[in-house]
Amino acid sequence: MKPRGKFRGQLAAAWQKNNSLLCVGLDPDPARFPAHLQGKPGAIFDFCTAIADATADLACAFKPQIAYFAANRAEDQLEALITHIHEKHPDIPVILDAKRGDIGSTAEQYAIEAFERYQADAVTVNPYMGRDSVEPWLAYADKGVILLCRTSNPGGSDLQFQKVGAGGTALFELVAEMVAKDWNPDNKYAGQLGLVVGATFPGEIARVRKIVDDLPLLVPGIGAQGGDIEATVNAGKTAAGTGLMINSSRAILYASKGEDFAVAARQVARETRDAINRWR
Amino acid sequence: MKPRGKFRGQLAAAWQKNNSLLCVGLDPDPARFPAHLQGKPGAIFDFCTAIADATADLACAFKPQIAYFAANRAEDQLEALITHIHEKHPDIPVILDAKRGDIGSTAEQYAIEAFERYQADAVTVNPYMGRDSVEPWLAYADKGVILLCRTSNPGGSDLQFQKVGAGGTALFELVAEMVAKDWNPDNKYAGQLGLVVGATFPGEIARVRKIVDDLPLLVPGIGAQGGDIEATVNAGKTAAGTGLMINSSRAILYASKGEDFAVAARQVARETRDAINRWR
Repeated sequence: MKPRGKFRGQLAAAWQKNNSLLCVGLDPDPARFPAHLQGKPGAIFDFCTAIADATADLACAFKPQIAYFAANRAEDQLEALITHIHEKHPDIPVILDAKRGDIGSTAEQYAIEAFERYQADAVTVNPYMGRDSVEPWLAYADKGVILLCRTSNPGGSDLQFQKVGAGGTALFELVAEMVAKDWNPDNKYAGQLGLVVGATFPGEIARVRKIVDDLPLLVPGIGAQGGDIEATVNAGKTAAGTGLMINSSRAILYASKGEDFAVAARQVARETRDAINRWR
Repeated sequence: MKPRGKFRGQLAAAWQKNNSLLCVGLDPDPARFPAHLQGKPGAIFDFCTAIADATADLACAFKPQIAYFAANRAEDQLEALITHIHEKHPDIPVILDAKRGDIGSTAEQYAIEAFERYQADAVTVNPYMGRDSVEPWLAYADKGVILLCRTSNPGGSDLQFQKVGAGGTALFELVAEMVAKDWNPDNKYAGQLGLVVGATFPGEIARVRKIVDDLPLLVPGIGAQGGDIEATVNAGKTAAGTGLMINSSRAILYASKGEDFAVAARQVARETRDAINRWR
């Protein structure tokens, strides 16, 4: 396997090569698999690799969600999946969606899990425990570290929309400022950092974009979660018309319940990519 | 194996039976294992079960930190460890320290991981994504859900100490209020909820205690992290002299680097338990 490059460079190359801002989320739920895969050993690997192979020329990133693998005792299949993607589709970065967050010594262990065991190119991280909980991830200079900022679920507002300080700044805006500035002295980690900002709040994507300059934004909430593509792209794109990893998982993975699931997934992925590109 | 009871009842029984507020943290770092375990297959299981067996009559809970298992590709040993504790020490609840936090459908998968796969009695959860990210955990009525509130690491202040709203409330206090009230309508989940509050800030433990009535507090930061036992117990104990799971990991686990590591761990665990009891 050839050496992996730096995350930010991988992402920029994939944006260009595939003319795509689409991130394909790999959330394998065996109960939703086509009948011919039900109960089959290795079905999670087979399902996810089929999706990856069918969409690799349409995506800027793949994002396996580790919870689905862990719930199914399928860590070995996650390892094999990421190895498969690196070998067959070396130009597409893999973001491990893990949303870990812990003190430094434990964060070091989680970083080993994500970057050494699974060989992910980037990982999602929760900012609640602050700067020193993020630094062990940033110690891997080639790897991406994508911090939760504004999430697309209903309860996302509970904490993230609290006003902090005097100026009416919301907590998620403060997180964006911390990530882009305080946790990124002299722009040292600009090639590694990114933020998660949900598609259900395009106005807030625009505010985050303004704060973080051209850091990449991972945007869940397209498709099953109902975000609006036009508003998302307009709010989040950089001057270069990139800067976004717009994630779709279920709408692509479960486009068909038949043996044609990968073909159907490819069709939805192509339509989603093209719908995104219409507004770049 | 006999059926597990409800977490809050297990914890109350263990407080009483062992006259202990000490939680023994199981953070197995193979590099720090005694020489005779180095490189041995199953060493993580052997090390952790030896610690558990040596301290089970001194502890109110065991807290395996999943990152250490995941970094070492040792999920099977974590499963076996928790099974061992349930079988040999059925009165001691097991808290899986995972600090997960994700949207509802993903949180359901993480809850399967923690409660069905690992059979943990409780889990730590990150509150950043809000109420609906916590509800799938609470759907397991027998299980404990312990939310991060104020963490003991230096960067804990970055977000948690932000002032929210007009009254000078800090974010961690708001989290305590949400957990105890908004996320706990009619006190429905009082038997399940708890909070993590670091020992390095006794004054803040006292403020959280005031807000959450007698919800259990998991308090890391004793020992290796330098928190003060007297101040912690005074700040956090309930009227009944309980309400706390005061965690110590490294000071107990690595009390000796020799073959006597379990004996040495027992000695430190006993001293820590007794030091805690002096102030109840």
